[in-house]
Order: sequence, then structure tokens, then C-alpha cells
Amino acid sequence: MTENTTAFSAIEWTDAGLRLLDQRRLPGEDVYLTIEDAPAAADAITKMVVRGAPAIGITAAYGVVLSARQHYREASHDWLSRVEGDMNLLAAARPTAVNLVWAIEQMRACLRVTPVEPVEVLLAVAARIHREDIEANIRMGAYGENLINKGDSVLTYCNAGSLATGGYGTALGVIRSAWSAGKLEKIYACETRPWLQGARLTAWELIHDRIPVTLITDNSAAFLMQGGQLQWVITGADRVAANGDVINKIGTYQLAVSCRYHGVRMMVVAPLSTLDMAMPAGDQVTIEQRPDNEVLELAGQRVAAAGAAGWNPAFDVTPAALVDCLVTEAGVVHAPDREKLLSLSNAQQPDG
Amino acid sequence: MTENTTAFSAIEWTDAGLRLLDQRRLPGEDVYLTIEDAPAAADAITKMVVRGAPAIGITAAYGVVLSARQHYREASHDWLSRVEGDMNLLAAARPTAVNLVWAIEQMRACLRVTPVEPVEVLLAVAARIHREDIEANIRMGAYGENLINKGDSVLTYCNAGSLATGGYGTALGVIRSAWSAGKLEKIYACETRPWLQGARLTAWELIHDRIPVTLITDNSAAFLMQGGQLQWVITGADRVAANGDVINKIGTYQLAVSCRYHGVRMMVVAPLSTLDMAMPAGDQVTIEQRPDNEVLELAGQRVAAAGAAGWNPAFDVTPAALVDCLVTEAGVVHAPDREKLLSLSNAQQPDG
Repeated sequence: MTENTTAFSAIEWTDAGLRLLDQRRLPGEDVYLTIEDAPAAADAITKMVVRGAPAIGITAAYGVVLSARQHYREASHDWLSRVEGDMNLLAAARPTAVNLVWAIEQMRACLRVTPVEPVEVLLAVAARIHREDIEANIRMGAYGENLINKGDSVLTYCNAGSLATGGYGTALGVIRSAWSAGKLEKIYACETRPWLQGARLTAWELIHDRIPVTLITDNSAAFLMQGGQLQWVITGADRVAANGDVINKIGTYQLAVSCRYHGVRMMVVAPLSTLDMAMPAGDQVTIEQRPDNEVLELAGQRVAAAGAAGWNPAFDVTPAALVDCLVTEAGVVHAPDREKLLSLSNAQQPDG
Repeated sequence: MTENTTAFSAIEWTDAGLRLLDQRRLPGEDVYLTIEDAPAAADAITKMVVRGAPAIGITAAYGVVLSARQHYREASHDWLSRVEGDMNLLAAARPTAVNLVWAIEQMRACLRVTPVEPVEVLLAVAARIHREDIEANIRMGAYGENLINKGDSVLTYCNAGSLATGGYGTALGVIRSAWSAGKLEKIYACETRPWLQGARLTAWELIHDRIPVTLITDNSAAFLMQGGQLQWVITGADRVAANGDVINKIGTYQLAVSCRYHGVRMMVVAPLSTLDMAMPAGDQVTIEQRPDNEVLELAGQRVAAAGAAGWNPAFDVTPAALVDCLVTEAGVVHAPDREKLLSLSNAQQPDG
């Protein structure tokens, strides 16, 4: 298997089941959970034990393996309908990232041609999805690094790293590659309220790899840009619509607006599995609304005044016009639009 | 004295000394501290027991009263030089808000013409500064309310309320007035990392006054604007330069950039004491850099991965070109610039 090249594995298949690093407990504790069936995998996705569009796709793929293993043993006569039920459960675990549905579709296609003794075959498909995600990240890392000039400083958002993918990372893959190439002057990360993926996860994994990182509050990015201290904002994506609109963590859009105002370039790094050619534009996505208490509390501690309401959309939509380049494993798309994404998509899926 | 019109007094003179509501403890506990000398007043400003440009000016003015009371009693032969030392200490307590220096200059001017028995005279001046600040806020509330249309929704930032002023508030004064007039559809407040003045203080005082408020993370304002759900961003200011540049809480500039991009109007509400005609442009201000741990922690709890650095400027600079209107107690300045502020300033200070 392709080397992860980072010092930990957030997702790992073992004989006992799927081993997940519990990202809710980071950076304080490294706790691993062993997931033994599909409902537990769906629950781990919903509760954000594992998060990040590619990572939840991979988790769902392994979840289908767990489902087949259980139901084929327990009830070989109607195991297929039970696996179907589990696939629906997994697909509904979070609504915004397209990779989840994409990975389940890969597993479903495999099931169609594997009517008997499915477990090993499904496991091979899930492992391939996992391996190809890491390979895609390493390719994207090289493509993205190539866009960066020596001495550039970069800001990343949320966590689009090893923890959010099969390994290496999308946005953090580019940053890892550019750091290894000695190009980066300074790496900034937004803390990313309310879940603090930047402060908790991005900082944790960069420091794990001995890459220095400076955290900023989400509200201070424009001031950093005003001072001329930033050349790139680099993020991942949860879904890219057919016209190039980017659905990503809440706050990405605000950064993109600031980038355009200051002439800072906006790079979105996402594998083709994140591209949703069936969705014409980003405004048609279902934005997950998460509980208010994530805004009003921290780790069970109330920080907001009693009686205040909260508004907590988990994602936002950045129009393609604000994206300078989309980096995929098939190459870089500058100023992405419908036509460019269509030819990229067709080139990769000649049978599609 | 002019009615505060809110249900609490964050700054109150008593015979025992200056009574301050400890804003570090809100919203959890209402704790009042009694400040008995000028070094304690300076310390309360530095440590943000009291914050907000007008409020720290008023606190410093009362701090000079405390200084004179102590030193005139203890050492009547050189009390004046000791008070001078205390005034320097108070002026250095925080670097960015101009009201601090402005209030101390008022007290210094009084001292020049009050060589003996100074305490009662100084107290009268401090009380006048306090009273006139509340009166100015009420006037600004009316001017600002007049700009708002029925059915508008507004977003405020940080805390520019009763807690940040002598009472009633600048930005929140406008919101109080517009709410009383039945004009506001919805009131949003950014939580305002890292110190969470929005979540802790703005929400606390609006709820105290039975005004409903919805908190958002600082990164989600642009997405709210994209949805067309917002007509105004209304903030206070820590200093307004002679050309109309606004120095205010870190994050104000990012909001102003988003406002301009979306056609949402930006209203800055600040008394004339916040206007610094001696500073030609905002880029000449000293931006206070506060300790990294405020970014690396949330409400006193470590949230960032060990080893991460932080960048924590307390304020930023919004160019005048991004400000739609500046509301002062002398009236509204649309599209503020040097010429308009000069005539406003001259009209108010014929002897200046």
C-alpha cells in the first residue's frame, strides 16, 4: 500500500474491524475506536469521530464491508437487502459531502457483480478506494506545490489533511509538498469555529510532522492579507458542483471574498471523487445545520450568555468565480467553470 | 444624572471608590470590584475588567480622581507630580483606544486650573465625562435609528454596548433605539474571538434588556450576507483617524470587506471623543498585540494542539472607503473623509 507519509493512521482496517482515531478527543488524547458494524460506522460519521469528505467516503466504504461480513454470515438468504439498508443508513450519515455517496456507489457497483462470497471482494474495493485516495493526494500535492513560489506564505482552513482523507491530505498535502520543497515562508491556519478543526486537528498533524504553524482567529485573515503577508489561501472541498462552485466548511466563502479583495490567490484541492457533475450549481446543495450548542458552548461549557440563540450552518458555498485554481489528481484547473470541469470529468471517465 | 436606561451599571462612582463590573466573569457571574487607587484602575483596564473605548476613558478619568484623593491627602506638598505619574500609568494601560488619552487630557486641563482642594472639582469633571458619554450615546442611538428601515436585520460585532461605554452603548445604542422603534427583523451578533465579547457581553446585555439575539461564528457573516439576510453591520470604534479610517476590534475589517462585496451597509457609531484628528490615517495607530494564549485557549481552556504558535492582534484598521456612515453625537457623516471630519471637528471645538 502507498505510504501514508504521516506519523499516524486515522483510518485503518484490521481483522477486528475498522480502527478510527477519535478526532473529537484531539489534540488532548489519541483514542482509537474499533467499529464493528455499519450502524456504528454511520454513527462515527454523524458524530464526527471521523470527518473530512474523503475520509468519510473511505469510512463508508469500509462500513459496507462490515455490513456484508455481518449479514452474509448471519442471514445468507437475504443478506443483500440488509446491506442495502445499511448503505442507505451510511449515505444519510451526513448530507453535504459528495464523497460519501460516491464511495457507496462504488461499493454498490461491486455488489451487483458479486452475488456470492462478497466480503473479500468488497474489502479489496474499499482498500482500493483508500489507497487511491492517498495516491491522489500525493499527486495533488505535487501539482499544487508547483503553483507556489519560493518565499510564499499560505493560510489553510479547517482540516484538509491526513485526518480528513485516506492520508497525506488535500490542502495539507500541497502544504506538506511545498514545505518539503523549502518553498514556504510561513504557514498560517484559521482556528475554524465552532469545531476548531484548525486549532485542534490541522495544528496537531502539522506539528506531528514537525512543520511549524501559526494559528489565527477566523476573523483576522483579512487583516493578515491587508499587511501583504499572505500569497495563498489553500482549502479542501466537501463537494464541487459542475460549474465549479465549492461547498466547504463554513467560513471558506468569507476567506474567498477577502482573497479576491486583496489579490490573494485561492487554491481549492480536491480529488475527482469530490466533483459532483450531477449538481449544476452550488446553491442546490443541502447545507447541514448542526446544533446551536456548538456555537454557544465549548466542550459542554457554556460560553454564551443564557438566552441567546445560535445559527450554525456547517458549510457554505463559494462561487467558482472566486476560485483561482482547482487542483485535482488529474491536473490543475485554472478559473474553473462548467466547460473545463466537464472535459476533466469526461477525460477521467470514458465510460461515464 | 441621565438615565442609563439599561438594567445595570458597569461603571459607578461610590464613596468607597470606583465600582466596576468585572467583564471577565460575564456571563457566568455578576462580580463587582471596588477600585481604590489609580494603579488598580490601570490594572483593571489592562486586564480587561473594563473594556470598550469610551468605558476605559471614563474609568481613567475616575482613576485620576482616585489618584488626587490619595496623594492630596498623603503628600500635599508634591501631590501634583504623583498624580502626573498616575496619569502616565493610566494612559499606558492600553495603547489603541484614543478615548483613554482624551479623558486624561480633560482631567489634566482641569488640574492646571485647580491647584488646591482638587478632589471635588476633578470628580465633577469625571462625572461630567461619564454623563456626557451616556447623553452622546442616546443622541447617536436616535441618529442611527433614523438610517434603518423597518424590517432590516442587523449584525453587530464585539461589544459596543452599555458595558463598553458610560451606558446605553454606541452600536448597541442604535440597535436599542431601532428595536424600541419596532424596526428590526432580526439582530445577529458575531461571537468575536478570541475574547468572545459578542457571545459573553453583547448577548448578555441584550438579553438583560429582553432584546432577542442570534449568535454566529465570526466566519459565517459573509454566508449570512450571501443569503440576503442582512442589511447593516453596526460596530463601535476604538479610534477614528482624521481621514475616517476606523480602528476597531480585530475582525471589523473582514466584515467591512464582506459588506462592500455584498452591498450590505457598514455603520460605525462613535462619539467625538473617539475621533483623533492628530492621527492623519489609521495605518499610524499602534495595534495592541495581546498574548498568544488568548487564541490558543477558549474561555480559559486550552484548545489548540501543543506546539502551535498564535498571532493575536487585538484591533484592525478599516479604511474609510469601506465605511458607509459614521454616526456621532453631532450627526451622521456619510462616506466619511478628511474634509467632512475636519468640519465636524471644527464645528464642535470652536476654541480648538
